[in-house]
Amino acid sequence: MCELLGMSANAALDLRFSWRAFRRRGGGNGPHRDGFGVGVYRDDGYHDFHDLSPAAESPLADFLANTIVPATTLLGHIRQANEGSIELQNTYPFTREMGGRLWCYAMQGQLAGYEALPLSGRFTPQGSTDGEHAFCWLLDRLSEIDRSDSAAVAALMDVCGERLAGMGVFNALLSDGRTLYAYASKPMHWLTRRAPFGVANALDSGERLDLAVHCDEANVHTLIVTQPLTDEPCWQVMPANRAVAFRAGERLTRDVHETFSRG
Amino acid sequence: MCELLGMSANAALDLRFSWRAFRRRGGGNGPHRDGFGVGVYRDDGYHDFHDLSPAAESPLADFLANTIVPATTLLGHIRQANEGSIELQNTYPFTREMGGRLWCYAMQGQLAGYEALPLSGRFTPQGSTDGEHAFCWLLDRLSEIDRSDSAAVAALMDVCGERLAGMGVFNALLSDGRTLYAYASKPMHWLTRRAPFGVANALDSGERLDLAVHCDEANVHTLIVTQPLTDEPCWQVMPANRAVAFRAGERLTRDVHETFSRG
Repeated sequence: MCELLGMSANAALDLRFSWRAFRRRGGGNGPHRDGFGVGVYRDDGYHDFHDLSPAAESPLADFLANTIVPATTLLGHIRQANEGSIELQNTYPFTREMGGRLWCYAMQGQLAGYEALPLSGRFTPQGSTDGEHAFCWLLDRLSEIDRSDSAAVAALMDVCGERLAGMGVFNALLSDGRTLYAYASKPMHWLTRRAPFGVANALDSGERLDLAVHCDEANVHTLIVTQPLTDEPCWQVMPANRAVAFRAGERLTRDVHETFSRG
Repeated sequence: MCELLGMSANAALDLRFSWRAFRRRGGGNGPHRDGFGVGVYRDDGYHDFHDLSPAAESPLADFLANTIVPATTLLGHIRQANEGSIELQNTYPFTREMGGRLWCYAMQGQLAGYEALPLSGRFTPQGSTDGEHAFCWLLDRLSEIDRSDSAAVAALMDVCGERLAGMGVFNALLSDGRTLYAYASKPMHWLTRRAPFGVANALDSGERLDLAVHCDEANVHTLIVTQPLTDEPCWQVMPANRAVAFRAGERLTRDVHETFSRG
């Protein structure tokens, strides 16, 4: 299995504190030593960082620990290889452009029989992971709907996620840089931070952060992670087998379809 | 205008020496201060590095100057913005997946009336540069030919390049990770290095490199750059308005079509 980290914010955020904790899960001696990747949206712009070295040791991970890389949405992945060798083409997150927007995807799981998921040929895996094949399959389906409608995308993820979860384990993060979607067939955790901000102690690194100093008063952001990153009491378990959407740091309500914002 | 750096090698190469020289062209006070990007293929794997800070000053450029990032093919770009604001979505190199291979593209130039180049909709610009629009147009045409045939790709680039050069200036690098294609409507320079290796003095950085120590005996690699990077006497001007292809460090002969290797 792997480790996932997602973030959605209403203004560009410095993620070094979270990264310094999360990267420790990519231990040099632990199981998650098969590389890592971080996809960063800064509004409509995107860049990413991939390395085959363990996140706990990699010089590129050091760079991310020490340098502010402003992010409004972030998808991080620490890999323990099962399907696919340890090569860059098998290192999450994966991206594809569709309709002028860049879609970014990271998965934790294992999908037995993924080769049977039909692909149109518009999107083709570069590597040999189950997750990239599933991503291409999902993109084919996304190409048929109004992707600016978050509720429609989430509904599609419900359907696709059910099928994928039935093939094993499907925990995934997906974003177009505006909305961050998460799907969990095994427990994932999330929290939303907003003023008044408290203090966070990172469980993996022991580092302490005074969020009131770190964040602007108006900042709202959500973290999604396999296991909680900090000692804050407000971590929640993600709903099982149901896509959840976040935009500008806030969870979008799904129970009342109409409260989804559009555009 | 911008600055381009291309590299093709027959085995993974450490490009820090060349990068330390090239990055100086992205001067903090000079005209090329509008960010940079480097796309790196390691065989069939790919990752890239983009930043909006000047290459001469950026912490990410420092990382690339100090850390070995093994590359078999590389495309670097230092930006002086004309079309498109200074944002990540306007920062070269750009990439798209087609048929399971990642195509990477960087351009130096200016294309008047680029909006008139028709796009099928399969590939859509994320940003607002002339070059990304031209890249999407080129990909549409590439989608119609056998892209494993380097001669066919180069012939297509001749035709497309002629049209683009007619719109202003079109200097470009394009690669699928196996073959590196270059097109120059204004002077670009290239050199191929092989054993017996000599000594190179970088013109921008003053740094000296003993290539015999730096390169394995069997290594062959080609550099392509707007202006020569070193004092080596073997720099040549690229042929004007004619696509040139390189694979595994060697220039592929175009005068006799049959000598192009395939696959």
